[in-house]
Amino acid sequence: MGLTNHQFRLAARPVGLPRDSDWDRVEEPVGEPDDGQLLVQVIYLSLDPAMRGWMNAGKSYIPPVEIGEVMRAAAVGKVIASRNDRFAEGDYVTGPFGVQEYCLSDGRGVIGIDPSTAPLPVYLGTLGMTGMTAYFGLIDIGRPQAGETVVVSGAAGAVGSVVGQVAKILGCRVVGIAGGAAKCRMLVDELGFDAAIDYKSEDIRKSLRDHAPDGVDVYFDNVGGDTLDAVLTRLARGARIVICGAISQYNSVEPVKGPANYLSLLVNRASMTGMVVFDYADRYPEAVARLAEWLAQGRLRTVEDVVDGGLGDFPDTLLRLFRGENTGKLVLKIADE
Amino acid sequence: MGLTNHQFRLAARPVGLPRDSDWDRVEEPVGEPDDGQLLVQVIYLSLDPAMRGWMNAGKSYIPPVEIGEVMRAAAVGKVIASRNDRFAEGDYVTGPFGVQEYCLSDGRGVIGIDPSTAPLPVYLGTLGMTGMTAYFGLIDIGRPQAGETVVVSGAAGAVGSVVGQVAKILGCRVVGIAGGAAKCRMLVDELGFDAAIDYKSEDIRKSLRDHAPDGVDVYFDNVGGDTLDAVLTRLARGARIVICGAISQYNSVEPVKGPANYLSLLVNRASMTGMVVFDYADRYPEAVARLAEWLAQGRLRTVEDVVDGGLGDFPDTLLRLFRGENTGKLVLKIADE
Repeated sequence: MGLTNHQFRLAARPVGLPRDSDWDRVEEPVGEPDDGQLLVQVIYLSLDPAMRGWMNAGKSYIPPVEIGEVMRAAAVGKVIASRNDRFAEGDYVTGPFGVQEYCLSDGRGVIGIDPSTAPLPVYLGTLGMTGMTAYFGLIDIGRPQAGETVVVSGAAGAVGSVVGQVAKILGCRVVGIAGGAAKCRMLVDELGFDAAIDYKSEDIRKSLRDHAPDGVDVYFDNVGGDTLDAVLTRLARGARIVICGAISQYNSVEPVKGPANYLSLLVNRASMTGMVVFDYADRYPEAVARLAEWLAQGRLRTVEDVVDGGLGDFPDTLLRLFRGENTGKLVLKIADE
Repeated sequence: MGLTNHQFRLAARPVGLPRDSDWDRVEEPVGEPDDGQLLVQVIYLSLDPAMRGWMNAGKSYIPPVEIGEVMRAAAVGKVIASRNDRFAEGDYVTGPFGVQEYCLSDGRGVIGIDPSTAPLPVYLGTLGMTGMTAYFGLIDIGRPQAGETVVVSGAAGAVGSVVGQVAKILGCRVVGIAGGAAKCRMLVDELGFDAAIDYKSEDIRKSLRDHAPDGVDVYFDNVGGDTLDAVLTRLARGARIVICGAISQYNSVEPVKGPANYLSLLVNRASMTGMVVFDYADRYPEAVARLAEWLAQGRLRTVEDVVDGGLGDFPDTLLRLFRGENTGKLVLKIADE
């Protein structure tokens, strides 16, 4: 077809925040699909804090992106050629297409999506991995009961904004922790949180005394660091902490700050459990169905922060996550729908 | 009866290791039992790392010992006078009698024991709170399956030595972490552990690579600090960490060292859960029955470290715990049986 692909490949493993020199900008011709393959034009790129971890060497829940590889990213795109039985030209799809304009895929991890059900970026957010993470982390690991107090950090972020709203739907009292007055206002005024704590201007421990007077039953942690330590001091007996991420630590060049107050787990017979969304793959349809129903009923609001740029804006857009500049799901638009 | 009681009362809240000036030695006449009370002569005092925590102010799983109060301690003794229907003169009993020679008790928390079933100190160890802690922490929180690898720290201590042996009985591979070659030899040669790691001379991470090649499924932590951090690097997927104590941190005047490698919980979908033995009070009989059966069958060895001294030896004997000088359950004998 004579198309040209632009890609971001990993040039070096970052120390601290990713820098421009950690990326190789590569231009190469787009290949033709072989038997079983489909060719996808990428429209929306998902930007996730977890991407920072994928750039590090070493064993994790997923292999690292190797030096020279196209940077891993979830994305939404349109099939422009297909020799795969499951997909036809013109289909909209989501999958691990990477930070590039075109992806030749064998169909693994690719799912067809319906743009009439929800706008395309929602398939990277509430109806994508973000929503799956929030749903299974909260419900399966957090196990909230109606009437309990659920606290979520990174509450105005992609996962946090869904966690808090789902907890409200389940009948919990919900307190969000976020950075800045505007985000906190949004949590309470637009997403229905019972309270929000601005970690930039408030003492989290003190504010939790007001907003979670009976202690925290479920804490969904996206940030780690001092916030995790603060919430540990306010656990209710039998509390469940969901370790979903630790964005405060991902770019630190210091050793990770372990939770000094972890013995609160003992005092309160509490647990801290890690989760990786991929483990729930066989139950994604359950979560998508419920989340889509809540969306349709207007009980759940999906928040996307779509940057209308191009592939070249990827490095800067990624950094917005670590500066706390996004509200809801951060998505980079790199082509027209 | 004209008896004189000697007691250790808390004089000051220790900073770091308890010092002599943190204790008040008090002498007072022994009272007569009122209606419902029994008078116990204390024979064996239980010495437990948890005692250090009880000396601190602040909310915990149990109220602190107040300044001026008799130091809290579990003990075994003999009823020398009783106006309580449940107990008669001459009965042997265990209960929270405190660091003193005689205790006037209303019977709460007091249990009759049979010296023909097991030597009296065993009722403070394997058949006492120590055994209960090991049993419920391992079985209910750790949930080991036959064939899994169980690692226990403080393995030559009171709780650890029971945890490791019970895990062996349940069909697990068991690795103990202890301080010094003699303790490690005992674990393997006498208690049947599969391997032991001497944290004083070995690199725990490296040794775990040899002794737990498939990773650690259950980690029963009595020590915290660097040991916890080392084991966190070797978790198997779905590992369960039981937080029973953190003796490495109890006397630190620095802030507690939080586990910097806690994100291994996420990578490995693992959990870290605190436990307090008192929560299992209604199931103590189940544990006592099973532990006693294993003792009788010779499948479980009980290890007591009985210091044959007197009440005055209490402060020094307590410090032996924090110097790692005891093997098995540390008990201070303060009167003849």
